[in-house]
Amino acid sequence: MVSILLNCMGNDNNECIKHQVQVKNPYLHTMEEDILYHFNLSTKTHNLPEMFGDTKFVCVGGSMNRMKAFSQFIHQELKLPGNPEEIRDICEGSDRYCMYKVGPVLSISHGMGVPSISIMLHELIKLLHHAQCRDVVLFRLGTSGGVGLAAGTVVITDKAVDYSFRPQFEQVVLGKVITRSTELDEGLASELLQCSSELQNIPAVIGNTMCTHDFYEGQGRLDGALCSFSHGEKMEYLRKAYEAGVRNIEMESTVFAAMCHVCGLKAAVICVVLLDRFEGDQITSSHDVLLEYQQRPQILVSHFIKKHLGLIV
Amino acid sequence: MVSILLNCMGNDNNECIKHQVQVKNPYLHTMEEDILYHFNLSTKTHNLPEMFGDTKFVCVGGSMNRMKAFSQFIHQELKLPGNPEEIRDICEGSDRYCMYKVGPVLSISHGMGVPSISIMLHELIKLLHHAQCRDVVLFRLGTSGGVGLAAGTVVITDKAVDYSFRPQFEQVVLGKVITRSTELDEGLASELLQCSSELQNIPAVIGNTMCTHDFYEGQGRLDGALCSFSHGEKMEYLRKAYEAGVRNIEMESTVFAAMCHVCGLKAAVICVVLLDRFEGDQITSSHDVLLEYQQRPQILVSHFIKKHLGLIV
Repeated sequence: MVSILLNCMGNDNNECIKHQVQVKNPYLHTMEEDILYHFNLSTKTHNLPEMFGDTKFVCVGGSMNRMKAFSQFIHQELKLPGNPEEIRDICEGSDRYCMYKVGPVLSISHGMGVPSISIMLHELIKLLHHAQCRDVVLFRLGTSGGVGLAAGTVVITDKAVDYSFRPQFEQVVLGKVITRSTELDEGLASELLQCSSELQNIPAVIGNTMCTHDFYEGQGRLDGALCSFSHGEKMEYLRKAYEAGVRNIEMESTVFAAMCHVCGLKAAVICVVLLDRFEGDQITSSHDVLLEYQQRPQILVSHFIKKHLGLIV
Repeated sequence: MVSILLNCMGNDNNECIKHQVQVKNPYLHTMEEDILYHFNLSTKTHNLPEMFGDTKFVCVGGSMNRMKAFSQFIHQELKLPGNPEEIRDICEGSDRYCMYKVGPVLSISHGMGVPSISIMLHELIKLLHHAQCRDVVLFRLGTSGGVGLAAGTVVITDKAVDYSFRPQFEQVVLGKVITRSTELDEGLASELLQCSSELQNIPAVIGNTMCTHDFYEGQGRLDGALCSFSHGEKMEYLRKAYEAGVRNIEMESTVFAAMCHVCGLKAAVICVVLLDRFEGDQITSSHDVLLEYQQRPQILVSHFIKKHLGLIV
C-alpha cells in the first residue's frame, strides 16, 4: 500500500486506486503466489512492480516477429538509449508469447484467435495489476481482411462485432454462455483518426470490425480445405456485413474489447487491411508490400504515444 | 495423375484415390495457384508432391519448441541419417507455425485454441491433398488439465466434447452455426493404449476430452483476471464433467476431430495431464518435471510409428 501511495504522487488516494489496473476476481488476493504460466513469470520469482510499474502503453499483435520489430521501432522513435537489437524477450523461457519492454511501452504477441489472445489478456491484466500500473492504454495492432476497402487502409475499430454483426462477445463460464459488451473508447478512436491525418501515407477510417473464430469458412473464404457455399452466397454475406458497418474482418477484437471493457481499461483496435475481400480470398501481395502495410498501425500508434509523451507538440 | 498411379503400386485405381487425402471444396481445383499463406508455401513456388508425397504420420502440437524437439526425437528413434540438430523449419518464412519433415513424419505446431489450429488444419489438409498423400494418420500431441487424474497421466481421447459434454463442434459458416461430429478412430485409440502398455512409465487411459475456448473462465479456473463463480461451483462443474466421462480439458480437440472426420482422415488426440484440476488451477510443477511429462505423448506416438514401420516387431 505504501508503494501505491508513493506512486500516486499526491493524488487523492481513491482516485489513484481507481486508475490502477483492476482485476475482477476476489480470489486473486488470497493467493500466496500467482504464476503467470504462459508468460513464464510469477509474483514470487519476479519483482513485477519494479519490472512493469511504469508501463503506460501496451501494444499487442498476433505475430512474434512483428511485435519484436515494433519494440525496436518504438525504441528508435522514443530516442531511448541502448541498442534496439538487444531488447530482451521477457518471456524467453516460454514460446507461447513474446514480450518486450521499451520505456513505458510493452509490446506483446498473442497468437491467432480469441482463445489465444484471451489467455494472454488474463495474464497481462493480472501482471499490470500486480505491478500496480496506472492509466494504461491498450492497443491491438493487427492485420485483417477488408470489406470494401483497398489493401493498405488502416481500420480503427468503432464497434467490435460478432458473426451476426452484434457488438457482443459470448463467453462460456462453467458451461453457461454469458454475453459481454465489446464497447471501445470512442475518444481514443477519434484521437487515432486525427493522428492518421497528421501522417503521410496512412490512409485510415473508423469502422466496425467483425471478429470470427476461423479464417476460412467463418470469413466466407472459398479457398479452404472445406467450403460448402457458393461465390454468390459469400458475396451476399460480405454485402450484409458492409451494410452493418463492417469494414474489416479479423480474429481477436471482440474478446480484446470485452475483457478491457470489464476491467475498465481504455483500449483501441487498429488493423491494416491486406486485401479487399470483395475482390478475393488469397493474400497475393509481395512480402515487401505486406511488410510495409503491417508497419502502418505501428507508425500510427507510435505517433499517438509520442504525442502523449510530449515528444511531438 | 501419372504420379498418383505410380504411387499406388498396383492397387486398384478407385481404391487408391479413395485413400488419398481429400478436400471438401469444389472450388480448389479451379484455382491456378493455392497460396498456403500461414505456412508460407504455395503450389506454384513449391513442388508439394516431391516435398511431402511420402508423408504417412502427421503429428501436431501447440508449442513450436515442443514440435521441434519432437522432430529431433523421432529422427533419432527412426535412426535416420543426418544431424537431427540441422532439421530445417519448412515454414521459416512465417512465424505463425513451424513445420519439420523427418522421413514419413511431419511435425507441425498449431498455437493455442480452436481458431489457431483450424487455420493450420485447413492449410495442412490442402497441403496433403496437393501433395497426393495417401493413408495418412494424424495425431495431436498436447498438454491438458486432468479431471480426477494424476499429473503425468496420458489421456488418449475417446470422444472430444464441448463445454456441455456433447461430442460435437459448432462451426460458424457465413453467419450460421452448423454442428459437426467429433468422432475419432476407436481402433486407433485402442492401438495407442496397447502401445502404452508396452512401454515403461507411460501411464495412459482412454477417456473423453473437453475442449474449451479459454483457459480460465471456461475451464473453471479461480485464478484468472476475471472470476465470477465460487470454489464450490467450480468443483460441481468438474464433477459433472467427470460423470460425463471427461478425463482431461484442453483447447483444440473438437475442431481437430471434426475437420479430420469431415475429410475422412484417421486421427487421435493424445494429451498428457499437467495437474489434477480437482486439486488446483495453477501449474506448479518444476520445469524439468513438466518437460518429462510433455515427452510422454511423444514417446507413445513414436512407439506406434515404429511399430507401423516395422522397426519394432
